[in-house]
Amino acid sequence: MIDLRSDTVTRPSDAMREAASDAEVGDDVYGEDPTVNELESRVADLLGYEAALYVPSGTMGNQIAARVHTDRGQEALVERESHVYKWELGGFAQHAQLQVRPVDGGERGTVTPEQVREGYVEADDHRAGTGLLCLENTHNSKGGVAIAPEELDAAAEAAHELGVPVHLDGARLANAAVARDVPLSRMTREVDSTMTCLSKGLGAPVGSVLAGSEDFVEAAHRVRKLFGGGMRQAGIIAAPGIRALENVDRLAEDHGNARVLADGLDELDGLDAHDPETNIVLVETDDPAEAFLERCGEVDVHGVPFGEYVVRFVTHWDVSRADVETAVERIAGLED
Amino acid sequence: MIDLRSDTVTRPSDAMREAASDAEVGDDVYGEDPTVNELESRVADLLGYEAALYVPSGTMGNQIAARVHTDRGQEALVERESHVYKWELGGFAQHAQLQVRPVDGGERGTVTPEQVREGYVEADDHRAGTGLLCLENTHNSKGGVAIAPEELDAAAEAAHELGVPVHLDGARLANAAVARDVPLSRMTREVDSTMTCLSKGLGAPVGSVLAGSEDFVEAAHRVRKLFGGGMRQAGIIAAPGIRALENVDRLAEDHGNARVLADGLDELDGLDAHDPETNIVLVETDDPAEAFLERCGEVDVHGVPFGEYVVRFVTHWDVSRADVETAVERIAGLED
Amino acid sequence: MIDLRSDTVTRPSDAMREAASDAEVGDDVYGEDPTVNELESRVADLLGYEAALYVPSGTMGNQIAARVHTDRGQEALVERESHVYKWELGGFAQHAQLQVRPVDGGERGTVTPEQVREGYVEADDHRAGTGLLCLENTHNSKGGVAIAPEELDAAAEAAHELGVPVHLDGARLANAAVARDVPLSRMTREVDSTMTCLSKGLGAPVGSVLAGSEDFVEAAHRVRKLFGGGMRQAGIIAAPGIRALENVDRLAEDHGNARVLADGLDELDGLDAHDPETNIVLVETDDPAEAFLERCGEVDVHGVPFGEYVVRFVTHWDVSRADVETAVERIAGLED
Amino acid sequence: MIDLRSDTVTRPSDAMREAASDAEVGDDVYGEDPTVNELESRVADLLGYEAALYVPSGTMGNQIAARVHTDRGQEALVERESHVYKWELGGFAQHAQLQVRPVDGGERGTVTPEQVREGYVEADDHRAGTGLLCLENTHNSKGGVAIAPEELDAAAEAAHELGVPVHLDGARLANAAVARDVPLSRMTREVDSTMTCLSKGLGAPVGSVLAGSEDFVEAAHRVRKLFGGGMRQAGIIAAPGIRALENVDRLAEDHGNARVLADGLDELDGLDAHDPETNIVLVETDDPAEAFLERCGEVDVHGVPFGEYVVRFVTHWDVSRADVETAVERIAGLED
Repeated sequence: MIDLRSDTVTRPSDAMREAASDAEVGDDVYGEDPTVNELESRVADLLGYEAALYVPSGTMGNQIAARVHTDRGQEALVERESHVYKWELGGFAQHAQLQVRPVDGGERGTVTPEQVREGYVEADDHRAGTGLLCLENTHNSKGGVAIAPEELDAAAEAAHELGVPVHLDGARLANAAVARDVPLSRMTREVDSTMTCLSKGLGAPVGSVLAGSEDFVEAAHRVRKLFGGGMRQAGIIAAPGIRALENVDRLAEDHGNARVLADGLDELDGLDAHDPETNIVLVETDDPAEAFLERCGEVDVHGVPFGEYVVRFVTHWDVSRADVETAVERIAGLED
Repeated sequence: MIDLRSDTVTRPSDAMREAASDAEVGDDVYGEDPTVNELESRVADLLGYEAALYVPSGTMGNQIAARVHTDRGQEALVERESHVYKWELGGFAQHAQLQVRPVDGGERGTVTPEQVREGYVEADDHRAGTGLLCLENTHNSKGGVAIAPEELDAAAEAAHELGVPVHLDGARLANAAVARDVPLSRMTREVDSTMTCLSKGLGAPVGSVLAGSEDFVEAAHRVRKLFGGGMRQAGIIAAPGIRALENVDRLAEDHGNARVLADGLDELDGLDAHDPETNIVLVETDDPAEAFLERCGEVDVHGVPFGEYVVRFVTHWDVSRADVETAVERIAGLED
Repeated sequence: MIDLRSDTVTRPSDAMREAASDAEVGDDVYGEDPTVNELESRVADLLGYEAALYVPSGTMGNQIAARVHTDRGQEALVERESHVYKWELGGFAQHAQLQVRPVDGGERGTVTPEQVREGYVEADDHRAGTGLLCLENTHNSKGGVAIAPEELDAAAEAAHELGVPVHLDGARLANAAVARDVPLSRMTREVDSTMTCLSKGLGAPVGSVLAGSEDFVEAAHRVRKLFGGGMRQAGIIAAPGIRALENVDRLAEDHGNARVLADGLDELDGLDAHDPETNIVLVETDDPAEAFLERCGEVDVHGVPFGEYVVRFVTHWDVSRADVETAVERIAGLED
Repeated sequence: MIDLRSDTVTRPSDAMREAASDAEVGDDVYGEDPTVNELESRVADLLGYEAALYVPSGTMGNQIAARVHTDRGQEALVERESHVYKWELGGFAQHAQLQVRPVDGGERGTVTPEQVREGYVEADDHRAGTGLLCLENTHNSKGGVAIAPEELDAAAEAAHELGVPVHLDGARLANAAVARDVPLSRMTREVDSTMTCLSKGLGAPVGSVLAGSEDFVEAAHRVRKLFGGGMRQAGIIAAPGIRALENVDRLAEDHGNARVLADGLDELDGLDAHDPETNIVLVETDDPAEAFLERCGEVDVHGVPFGEYVVRFVTHWDVSRADVETAVERIAGLED
């Protein structure tokens, strides 16, 4: 079986399992888990922030950030295909009483400074003023687009000029950094807080990290408790998370495999593969996506539908170059 | 002074003042105010519903409707320039925990059945399903556009096919009905609930009415209490509201005056007046809107800014044909 | 019919009706209704505050105050039989995300400084700190108890020492002031905001006023809009409200009538009337309250159940001394 | 160091670490983690429910239950010293818009059927009806009281007769079951949902389980996603959780140690230890709790303050009989 549904399906390596087994732990609710503390400290450094907080999921990290940055009744500017808007069950409204103002980021999901200024709403007696700009990199729904650091900077600076804080949903930020050949901290330069996932391309079994200033993280710590995200001897899962940080450079392999996959599929009749920037390949299909995926499933190749005639395949460390070549062959064979 | 800022500035007529003075009243929280009961009954008939509820403002009527139709965490489809989205302080998120999905209604603010189907989100583990479609007629931000009943029907039917209830923000529904030359009840035919204002073109001093099925209104009654919208001897203001219902046909005069105003202004240098469908005239200005309005104010003509280079003027019963002609003359005189 | 259900059932006087009819009005959403402005200014003076805001109901006034004073997720200290806790549909949780911590005010509903200190919760990582103390005077559920100004002062000072703001639900504050023979502003001396109703003993048809500092009222104005409490030519109802302010001293008559009623009923078999401090008479009944009230209804005397074996009667300006004497006679006659 | 602050500080055993290392895993967001599935199935069986859901913390389990059982704006009956009311940051108001009605459970924290009936509020136009009864066993704040199953049954039955669902915060339910010598499923017999923690006396590093009917768990699964509680290869922490289930009987040792500790401390001057029912020992201190604990800390014995003059010590599997004897000796030595 070649599982290309998501990079979240990766199984932990032996080194990660060993790290889990050997982790020095304590009660993280008391702040006494040395492994969690180390992970938080390392990610803060990696992303260029003062502090960081370990959370069970990327969704929780994003939702905590929205709560901390805003007051109830404000507006949040989001890209209209962004994860926080599409896939988090309306959490901005439910958790933070935020009205969302979606911005059309076009084919690459990039929010421009002009869009920030146009979407910005000044608070008055009838209008809930803008309280947050939320960016996403890589942009999942747009096919793993790696937005350039300068583009993030520009949007963030436009927001800051208006007094609006900026959060970055960097679930796959490492993929973006590798694709753009910059350190992760370059991506976050103008951004007030960033969430990044250890459990996607980096391969950790569980967990994400939310990073920002010390004040931000102190407030986030309290909201994490409110959400029920405080865990006890979390070092057991933080330890493989630390190992996962070593996998940043390895993501280049996934990106190469994605390109091979895209090139291979694009040559097939009835398939039009987008040019992948990272580890996500969107493929337009002549047949309905569901039907196409069902046939793929019959030859043990798995993806997910991403539209009525769009399919998403994701490469990751449980998928080798040989695997993606095999996947192309098997799908080619379907045509006969 | 010629006050064209809004049709909300109308002062009650002598007949309305007399009605207020003579109103038979009771405690409406106990349902015992005969004048309120009569108003509610009349508006329910006028709009073609089983029941109706008197509320202090159109905003409260819309927000109550959103609460009653939805469960927390659903999505609401709204036109992107609609009042509920732009001017009600993010109430859908704050009062009803709704995530808003705005639809671009184009120049006329019309939501099409295709847009309803495209904007519709089916509830699943990651997505807050669509729980409400909210329409607006006339469309304020688009310049008092009178959407045709068939267009409302089509959008509402598309929503109903998807199991989504429909609310109509009919703050100025009577203007739309007069412009389209249909009874008000024709406008609401496929719509589950409608809010309409007595205090705009109809001229009542205070109040709006929210109408729907008996079950809907029973639930709305409770939410009105939650919002603090229950009033005691409200017959005092409901009585002029009943008188206001006699003013529906008179709105044709306002529409005629708006046309005269638009035609007059459009001929002036530096002004481009949109063709009004009802009583709202949007004028594009070469000068910044604020500066232009300041100069209008110097000759005692008043409007409101509706964009950096757009001004809104509204005709109403405190403004005669002579007044709008004078307004054009005065503004023309500014140019010298 | 002698209607003793509530002082909310009073019908406006001719003077009030005339005031409604003659009111100078404007658009209060623009702050241009001179009558509303005058009412707000007078009530601010009367209560000893910088500013005030006209609202459609007491419930809205209380709920707005809770929103303005607190941040989401704080706690509110309330008396366990208080109106905000019992009769406002859980609004503190729904509108302001507040956790309520009820305090037992005993027979008179008085919150002591000790109870404030005991109920106070300091914010930490697990606890939502106390963000509001809400007092009530007169205390409705306790039978119109007129809490002494010194008692309010003491509780408010205890709260202030802990950094907690204080709101007073003064729906019937004028009754308390008259009973205690002090000006209304004496009652509010240590309290940050006060809501008082024009529509109860003072006899106005509609409306309440929320008063506090200028900053508080500015913030309250915005929340009023969010709640849909902004009204247009509200002078029509504010004008009788201004007249209602002349009725403060007249409340002494209601209190006298309540005493006559209580004394009369207390002498009857099967009835035990509490000693009234203001215009509310609680009567314990040997028969179930509902059954007793049904029989009262047969002789056209009306009250409301206030417990399984407790009935509430309220005197007001539509009820004369002769009326309460008649009521006693009729109820006495039931016994045969 | 003898750490008696909480049973949450336990470090995982070698067997648990090995289980983490060897766990068969999958993507639990897709429902494909066999270890998580096994844990959920085992806990459902153990507690006598159809289904169960793994969650990162007990707080999240309780808060999800409140959301699933109720509609916004209802009331929740809780014991006034219960964890959900005291230590979860007002989550019932914040996550579920619930107004809390606390009940005084007395020295043992037991809610009686009479209290349920008295605290019950029927929904009407002014009152948010009761939508949830939440019980807790063992009762943490009351000193680990093991409430009898018959007491839980009685309260739950009273709630059910009123149509109110019942949730049990069983963070330490296994301690209660062992103390009462009944299976865990006996405790939950009349209760609609139960949350129990793997990370307290049972010793797992992370995680809790929320159990109930299939419909309940399906709804809970969605709310878990909203809260950001969905994790990926969670088998890594679920595996030690499965091992933790073997530790139920071992809790009797902790209870015995608690008794030894209580007896020892009670004999010391200035200390009055409550009789422990499970693994929690509350000690009243003549000195302020903080000062007493500071001195304990100097001899490496650690507890937490539980009141101004109350200290809590908790026994657990990282604390042996010898350790508690040593703790008593050291504290005795302080007195000199």
